[in-house]
Amino acid sequence: MKAEREHAIGVFDSGIGGLTVVRALMDRLPFENLIYFGDTARVPYGIKSVETIQSFSAQIADYLMARQVKLLVVACNTMAAVASEVIKARVNVPVLDVIDAGARAAVAVSDRHAIGVIGTPTTINSNAYARSIQALRPDVRVYSQACPLFVPLVEEGWLDHEVTRLTAREYMKPVFVENIDTLVLGCTHYPLLKPLLQDVVGSSVRLVDSALTVAEQAAGLLQAMDLANPQRSQPSYRYVVTDIPLRFQALGSRFLGRDMPAVEMARFT
Amino acid sequence: MKAEREHAIGVFDSGIGGLTVVRALMDRLPFENLIYFGDTARVPYGIKSVETIQSFSAQIADYLMARQVKLLVVACNTMAAVASEVIKARVNVPVLDVIDAGARAAVAVSDRHAIGVIGTPTTINSNAYARSIQALRPDVRVYSQACPLFVPLVEEGWLDHEVTRLTAREYMKPVFVENIDTLVLGCTHYPLLKPLLQDVVGSSVRLVDSALTVAEQAAGLLQAMDLANPQRSQPSYRYVVTDIPLRFQALGSRFLGRDMPAVEMARFT
Repeated sequence: MKAEREHAIGVFDSGIGGLTVVRALMDRLPFENLIYFGDTARVPYGIKSVETIQSFSAQIADYLMARQVKLLVVACNTMAAVASEVIKARVNVPVLDVIDAGARAAVAVSDRHAIGVIGTPTTINSNAYARSIQALRPDVRVYSQACPLFVPLVEEGWLDHEVTRLTAREYMKPVFVENIDTLVLGCTHYPLLKPLLQDVVGSSVRLVDSALTVAEQAAGLLQAMDLANPQRSQPSYRYVVTDIPLRFQALGSRFLGRDMPAVEMARFT
Repeated sequence: MKAEREHAIGVFDSGIGGLTVVRALMDRLPFENLIYFGDTARVPYGIKSVETIQSFSAQIADYLMARQVKLLVVACNTMAAVASEVIKARVNVPVLDVIDAGARAAVAVSDRHAIGVIGTPTTINSNAYARSIQALRPDVRVYSQACPLFVPLVEEGWLDHEVTRLTAREYMKPVFVENIDTLVLGCTHYPLLKPLLQDVVGSSVRLVDSALTVAEQAAGLLQAMDLANPQRSQPSYRYVVTDIPLRFQALGSRFLGRDMPAVEMARFT
C-alpha cells in the first residue's frame, strides 16, 4: 500500500520509554497523526537475546503496517541496535531510529571527538552506536558503558535521589577518565535523568538526547518526500500497549510530559 | 494422566530467580528428577498486570504438564501471588508455592507476631502474604514493602555494594519502625542479599527464605502421597527457558550455586 500524507507516523518501543520520542514528535510536528506501540507485556528488551528482540520487533512492525503508517520510528535503542535491518527489510515505508539520529547529533556537537555512550546492556553490547558514529567520522573515539540500573531507577521515580547519584558516579567512572566532551543518552528512559547526569559529568560535557534529534529527522524526511500532513486541526493520537501494568498512568505521564490518555490493548500470545 | 513416582517435579518461574528453589530441592530431595521452566523472554513479571501474569502462568503450567510432572512448584512469588488459583484449577497434580511456604515459616518463627514482608510491586500489591499469614494466625500484624530495585541490583551483581545498602535502608525505613521480629524474603532473588539485609535490619530480626521452606513442604508431600522417587542414582535435571540473554550462564550459576548446565529453548510466540 502506498504511503499517504494523511497516514500516521508509527512509533514503537519495548515499553513506555519511547513516549519521550512521542513528546518530541508532538512538539516538532504538531499536525501529524501518531500511533504508538509499547510492548509492555514483554518489557524490558535490554536484557534479552538478539534473536528474541528481532522476532518481537518484526511482530510489532507488522502490526503497525497493518494500521497504515507512512513512516516508522524505532524509539527503542535496544531494538534499533539489533533489529533495525530486520525491520527495514520487512516494510515499504521509511524507517528512522534513535541510534542513527543520536550518532549524527553527537558527531555534530563533539569538538574534541571523544564521545561517551550510555545504554542498556544489549544496546552497548551490540556496538551499534560506535559503528554508526565511526561510519560518520572515523577519527572519533567512542567510549561505551552499560547502565542496567538506570531504567529501574527511573521507573522507581528516583530521578534526583542519592542512590541514583551514587549509581551514576559508579557507571561514569570508566567513561569519565577518557576526557569525553559529549555523552549520548542511548536509552529513552535516560532523558529523565538529564539534570542529575549533567551534574555528575559536569557542565563541560554535552548531553545528546536522541528523542529531539529523531523528531528533527522525521520533520526533514516528511518534507523531502512530500508526506507532511496538510491538516491544521488537532491530530489523532493512538496508544497501543500489550499490558497495562501497575502505575502505568503515572509513569506514562512522566515520559509523555502530559496526562496519559486512554490506551488500547493488543495481545500477541 | 496419573502421577507416577518416577515423574519429575516441575518448578517454574518468570526468569531464573527460581533456581534458588531448584538448589534447595536438590539439597533436600537428592534423588528426585527436576524440570525447571524460566520464562526469560518475558521476565520480569513483577511489574505486569494480574491478567497478563495469569495468562502466562497457565501457558507454562500446560507446558510442564505435557512433560509428565507429579508435582508443580510455583517458585515465583509474583505468580504465586496472583495466579496460584488459576494454576491449581488447571492441573491434576498437587501445586506448592513459595508464598504459602513462606507464610507458614514466618508464623512458626515469629515471637512478637510482627512480620515484615518484602517483594516486587505486584506481589506486595496483591496482599497475598498478608492474607496467607493472617489465615494461619489472625492476631499477627503484617507490614509489607515493595522493593522494585532489589531484582535489578541482584542481577547487576551488586550484592554487597554501597548503592544496595543505601537502597535497602530506604526501603526498610517504614517496615523497621514497626518493630518487626521476622522478615519474609518474598522474592526468589532476595536470598542472594541475605548477608546485606541481615546487616541492615540487625541480628534480632529473623529472615525467612521460602526456597528452603517450600523444599521441606515438597519432601513432606511426596512422602505422604507415596510419590517419592525410589531411584538411588543421579537424577535427571532439565532446564527450559524462553530466551538465553546476555550473562545467562554467570547469573544462573549465582542462583543455582553451581555451574549452570546446558538449557533447552521453548518459544511460545
